[in-house]
Amino acid sequence: MNEELQIIYEKLSFCFETRKFADLRILLLDMEPFDIARFMEDNLDDKDQLRFFRLLPKELASDVFVEIETDIQENLIKAFTDKELKEVVDDMFLDDTVDVIEEMPANVVKRILKNSSPENRKEINALLEYPDDSAGSIMTTEYVSFSASTTVESAFEKIRKTGLNKETIYTCYVTDRKKHLIGVVTVKDMLLADKNELIAHIMEESVVTASTLEDKEQVALKFSNYDYLALPVIDKEGCLVGIVTVDDAVDVIQEEATEDIQKMAAVLPSEKPYLKQSVFSLWKARLPWLLLLMISATFTSMILSSYEEKLAVIGGAVLYAFVPMLMGTAGNAGNQTSVTIIRAIAVGDVQFRDLFRVILKELLVALLVGLTVAVVCFGKLLLIDSLYNDISLRTAIVVSAVLFLSIVMAKLVGCLLPLLAKICKLDPAVVASPFMTTIVDVLSLILYCTIAIAIL
Amino acid sequence: MNEELQIIYEKLSFCFETRKFADLRILLLDMEPFDIARFMEDNLDDKDQLRFFRLLPKELASDVFVEIETDIQENLIKAFTDKELKEVVDDMFLDDTVDVIEEMPANVVKRILKNSSPENRKEINALLEYPDDSAGSIMTTEYVSFSASTTVESAFEKIRKTGLNKETIYTCYVTDRKKHLIGVVTVKDMLLADKNELIAHIMEESVVTASTLEDKEQVALKFSNYDYLALPVIDKEGCLVGIVTVDDAVDVIQEEATEDIQKMAAVLPSEKPYLKQSVFSLWKARLPWLLLLMISATFTSMILSSYEEKLAVIGGAVLYAFVPMLMGTAGNAGNQTSVTIIRAIAVGDVQFRDLFRVILKELLVALLVGLTVAVVCFGKLLLIDSLYNDISLRTAIVVSAVLFLSIVMAKLVGCLLPLLAKICKLDPAVVASPFMTTIVDVLSLILYCTIAIAIL
Repeated sequence: MNEELQIIYEKLSFCFETRKFADLRILLLDMEPFDIARFMEDNLDDKDQLRFFRLLPKELASDVFVEIETDIQENLIKAFTDKELKEVVDDMFLDDTVDVIEEMPANVVKRILKNSSPENRKEINALLEYPDDSAGSIMTTEYVSFSASTTVESAFEKIRKTGLNKETIYTCYVTDRKKHLIGVVTVKDMLLADKNELIAHIMEESVVTASTLEDKEQVALKFSNYDYLALPVIDKEGCLVGIVTVDDAVDVIQEEATEDIQKMAAVLPSEKPYLKQSVFSLWKARLPWLLLLMISATFTSMILSSYEEKLAVIGGAVLYAFVPMLMGTAGNAGNQTSVTIIRAIAVGDVQFRDLFRVILKELLVALLVGLTVAVVCFGKLLLIDSLYNDISLRTAIVVSAVLFLSIVMAKLVGCLLPLLAKICKLDPAVVASPFMTTIVDVLSLILYCTIAIAIL
Repeated sequence: MNEELQIIYEKLSFCFETRKFADLRILLLDMEPFDIARFMEDNLDDKDQLRFFRLLPKELASDVFVEIETDIQENLIKAFTDKELKEVVDDMFLDDTVDVIEEMPANVVKRILKNSSPENRKEINALLEYPDDSAGSIMTTEYVSFSASTTVESAFEKIRKTGLNKETIYTCYVTDRKKHLIGVVTVKDMLLADKNELIAHIMEESVVTASTLEDKEQVALKFSNYDYLALPVIDKEGCLVGIVTVDDAVDVIQEEATEDIQKMAAVLPSEKPYLKQSVFSLWKARLPWLLLLMISATFTSMILSSYEEKLAVIGGAVLYAFVPMLMGTAGNAGNQTSVTIIRAIAVGDVQFRDLFRVILKELLVALLVGLTVAVVCFGKLLLIDSLYNDISLRTAIVVSAVLFLSIVMAKLVGCLLPLLAKICKLDPAVVASPFMTTIVDVLSLILYCTIAIAIL
């Protein structure tokens, strides 16, 4: 947080505590809803949050409400009178109302719906039907649309009349009588056109659309590729049912990146900011994978135990000393590849049809990287490790050779797993990263033991 | 890629090969510049790319050029006549021109500047001065501005005259005679106001701004927090020098997430898409950290070697069998924490002032997670591992206790390293993730050896 905001927060606290509510309102009018929400969360307790919220200028109340975190939203709704709730809900965009509703318990949802207008209630219920990860779940039904025979002048007239409650007015949609999407027109085009021009003549007929059930991550990717401000969402019949705006796409991009990062680190993803998560929920998010990986490490223990006697004959202790280095390097090498591929899949750089190109490329990189690292390791064994350990030339050769093979193997596993996950319609980030470590550990250990026993 | 696009690509190839250029142009007019650029990259060789580019409808040429990858841009510029180059450069937005120039060799840069208008040349040179990661480097100087005494009607007049060449017209800026930013007004506000209203009366005076040298990642974060379409950039004197638009913010968000993911996986970051990177450049990106981590694993080898004799006395082989499990679990536990904290810092959820809150929280989570995993491990040792290995109750206690301590230690290291990196103004993603593994490996191994020798 910057210092300027810190100073404003202190002024807010002062005005609120000394009940200088007129000054408080003046301060608030100059603030962003996001910053007001953060102030309420970090500086006020339950009761004061409600008192403070009631002081918000009317035009800010619903914007701030949308930005507040779920627990506090729930407390506020429970404390609101029906009239207050109705005012807030009426002022919210429909997609925001749906976001709020999705996080609320059933009795709160009922109250929200009861205090919505009948027609809003119908649209909210429709939006709630869409699956969590779909374009339908992040779209809003509040867009501007015209028929193709409208003139620019009357189009502007319509925007003036209805625009205040639309999520964006800058991209408008052209539909026929059955609500089929037939074109898109921007306010910029309309401003640059003659006022008597027909929308049909200035609209763009080829429109990139999303379908209601399309993965919202794919939809967000379209925004980053095509630089849109809004994207129309159509149903199976080609009818316009809503739009996704760029601010929602930005949120999806941030959330999906965070989610993938969490999955790659073997943490169950959470949408809550870190500091808002309880110790218990962090424990729940981290335990499952950690337990699973710990238990699957039984395999490495079994392998080491089963080779124990044979390794002892050929000087086990020296060999044991390099197990962490071998497994660690193989794990890192595999991780480099799997994470690179997972991200490339997520941002659309790599697709299923690239399978063989990717495998070939990774094989070449693996051979190059493996060779370089193995050669350096060979030198290190003879020059550095021989200072504190009794290392024969043969041992050095075995360790370096296994290192080379482990790296190549790890990189191949690292590129195959995410691609296979993608083919099986599983999430590459979940399947690939945590599993990879176990597979690579086991394989590199088997390589080490068998090759060491064969040669030494 | 979807099937629809695949079919269009095939039609394009067909029209191009059979020289049906009129049909080709009709197809192209309905396509997105991004998709045309991908078609040229994936389906045409050097010569055909130039021929194809010359067939593009004039209004598309510069938009497509911006989306093409750097190597091909360079080839095209080298093959362009001065007239062609001038046309493309004149049509590009200034921030895009700067992006192109930044990737080109000196002689190509000279040619681009030579073919720019004198006033564009001056602005391009100014933009090139800003550091790579700053708001200045991603902003454009092509915005719409008014004085406060303009009427809405004449403001629209100005947009109609100059808007075509501005990167956005929807957010306009109000400046005084010395170019100080005094307010912001949206086209929506203007459309809803009376045409004789003064801009001064409808403008918003409190404006969130970025400064020219602000980190572009921070600027992108403002877009995701505040849902803007554009953000004004001001210099030290408060003068408006440019704007950043949301499409550039989206690109920054995507790139920064990819960069952080690469760094966490011990890969040197690259801006190029995976399939465009050569085997050699992938090798160069992956080798340094892999080598460094391999060499730093010398410490684990040294520790195991130095405890070798003492461990042999107390039944070393049984103990060795659990080294991979212990180090692996500690590594995973540490990684969970460090990655979570790194991402929380990146998206602005955690800041330096939260240091003690974070440490306390992680300590509690670590104790809970460590206890759970250790208890399960204790059971596993006695029930499963005892089937293939000779495990005494005492061994099981030692292994579980070390596991508990290692997890707690790993989670503390995992939260301290990124926060310390942040304090030292280093990049948390680079410093924390790869280093953490080595530190955690060494510490957990020392814990294991000393405790085992002390108790057994």
